Amino acid sequence: MKENRLRTVLQNLEQMGLSQALITDPLSILYLTGRLIKPLERFYALYVSQSGHHKIFINQLETVPEDLGVEKVRFTDSDPYLDLVYQAVDHSQPLGVDKNMAARFLLPLMDRQCAPGYVNASLAVDKARSVKDAQEQALMRKASQINDEAVKAFRTLVREGITERQVAEQTKGIYLDLGAEDFSFEPLIAFGASAASGHHYPDGTQLKPGDCVLFDVGCVYEGYCSDMTRTYFYREVSPKQEAVYDLVLQANQAAEAAIRPGVPLRDLDRIARDIISQGGYGPNFTHRLGHFIGLETHDFGDVSSAAEDVAVPGNIFSIEPGIYLPGEMGVRIEDLALVTEDGVEILNHLPKALEVLP
Amino acid sequence: MKENRLRTVLQNLEQMGLSQALITDPLSILYLTGRLIKPLERFYALYVSQSGHHKIFINQLETVPEDLGVEKVRFTDSDPYLDLVYQAVDHSQPLGVDKNMAARFLLPLMDRQCAPGYVNASLAVDKARSVKDAQEQALMRKASQINDEAVKAFRTLVREGITERQVAEQTKGIYLDLGAEDFSFEPLIAFGASAASGHHYPDGTQLKPGDCVLFDVGCVYEGYCSDMTRTYFYREVSPKQEAVYDLVLQANQAAEAAIRPGVPLRDLDRIARDIISQGGYGPNFTHRLGHFIGLETHDFGDVSSAAEDVAVPGNIFSIEPGIYLPGEMGVRIEDLALVTEDGVEILNHLPKALEVLP
Repeated sequence: MKENRLRTVLQNLEQMGLSQALITDPLSILYLTGRLIKPLERFYALYVSQSGHHKIFINQLETVPEDLGVEKVRFTDSDPYLDLVYQAVDHSQPLGVDKNMAARFLLPLMDRQCAPGYVNASLAVDKARSVKDAQEQALMRKASQINDEAVKAFRTLVREGITERQVAEQTKGIYLDLGAEDFSFEPLIAFGASAASGHHYPDGTQLKPGDCVLFDVGCVYEGYCSDMTRTYFYREVSPKQEAVYDLVLQANQAAEAAIRPGVPLRDLDRIARDIISQGGYGPNFTHRLGHFIGLETHDFGDVSSAAEDVAVPGNIFSIEPGIYLPGEMGVRIEDLALVTEDGVEILNHLPKALEVLP
Repeated sequence: MKENRLRTVLQNLEQMGLSQALITDPLSILYLTGRLIKPLERFYALYVSQSGHHKIFINQLETVPEDLGVEKVRFTDSDPYLDLVYQAVDHSQPLGVDKNMAARFLLPLMDRQCAPGYVNASLAVDKARSVKDAQEQALMRKASQINDEAVKAFRTLVREGITERQVAEQTKGIYLDLGAEDFSFEPLIAFGASAASGHHYPDGTQLKPGDCVLFDVGCVYEGYCSDMTRTYFYREVSPKQEAVYDLVLQANQAAEAAIRPGVPLRDLDRIARDIISQGGYGPNFTHRLGHFIGLETHDFGDVSSAAEDVAVPGNIFSIEPGIYLPGEMGVRIEDLALVTEDGVEILNHLPKALEVLP
């Protein structure tokens, strides 16, 4: 068990008035134990309690290390695992559960009368996960370093007539060669008008001079995700493209420069949005400025006009303003930002000045 | 709405003693409406009732066709969607819910006292989905036809020294060119000893003469999944490899020949397993014989020693016996089988006789 992380989660639960919780999100269990198990359709849960009697429920089919640092409760497919959970839980106190706990587990728990009440307690873990400790920061730094190297390599693939899909097909190998374990999401590679769509899937679109070339890509390193976007131009760039790019870059830089502990996250969104609006493209910046990231590409927490939190040291989120002109082009520039004790560390180092690829 | 499918689901609910259900699995909603929406973290549900007052709850951010054939209840991110659900539900009757309904939706429904009880009612939809109608059968046939063509193309990629990953990288493009929309799962391509592992991820393993070459691959066509496995040998084949292949092929063929309406699914598993056991490789056939397939690669239902159902016309499942020799090789031969009124239609037509690739 990662004792510091567990302590934070227990404190958060206490603030919610909860003495116990059953955590079923495999990534939250990874966060607390350092061990990832993908249980497929099987029951898998970590029970944590203010009393200190933590237990992990794992099917016999899974192999787990001896030194997990928490009592293991093993069961087979035919064992009544519910009885085992019942024995662990304090029946006099409400039980916190994960926001995504499936009804097929939750309803039987209720029928068994494990607890007098059930509360969505995910925030206790999600809040803890939103503040990365030193070990996590190091892994996030490395994941972004690989991502920088990868985009540098992806740039060299472009040539006239190549399709988005042909570039996309080569990305996995480049990531693996650089030491990543997987994509953190399917790479978004878009040429010209394709880049105006937020969720374009690389297709047979061929690259031609004057197109923008957008890479929105990320990889996983030891469980932690990276995510960055760079937009280039192929062979030539029009004055309009330059003006759009310059606005997005200003928005990206101004928002990043404003990051420090205590800054309201919604202010970051406003700073970027104001710049783009003043440039006349407000309606074309169609999404929030950023999202938190860690064990998932989209961790709990966002950087938007509706965000209610302030930045705290250890937060890592994306800063990704964009301008999208349907039928024409799209520009987005995205870095990951780590809030430090006295400011910010940008995890991506690939240059952002406008570049025309040869 | 697909009226025949809805009628079956309502009949199944009635047999469970339920007058109403809230269906939240996007694929089950697709099955009943013909329309796929991926709601991400937003609430999305189809309410069905024996009274005929069906309603679909869809966030305003989603675009939906006018002619969905069911009353639409739209809401924004800030609307209290729970009140809208409350208004639709019969508060005197238990409410069926999906097995994977998330606690963050289920707990508030309960707090709002929508119904006097909540029941995991997924079986009502899962059972309906396990019997494919003519339209679904046609799409499944087409998805497998594309898969046959794809494997034919994948075979031509192998050459000495090529890596599993290099082959895997070319598969998506081949599928898309053949008209598929996506993988149904990440392709499993394994050479030699890699094929002994059930869930091998294509890596830098290089092909050498004498290796087995295993393709376990599938694609999606108009929402429906294919899944097949072929195992070849590269340049040369040893007597032991031939014997193992022959056993697996016999097991595959005998199980497929036994498929007809009314046959217990566990008998199919036994027929295949007996052949492999009698050949001395029983312990090396480490998984169930097959799984149901449709809108998901692993639909509800399996073909195993524990299966309690009998085959009925319209069922589609895989028949995939295998023998795995750790450190050495693996052979698996898999087709999809459609149970017909009087027997079986095998959806894969790529030859299965032992082949040595040049």
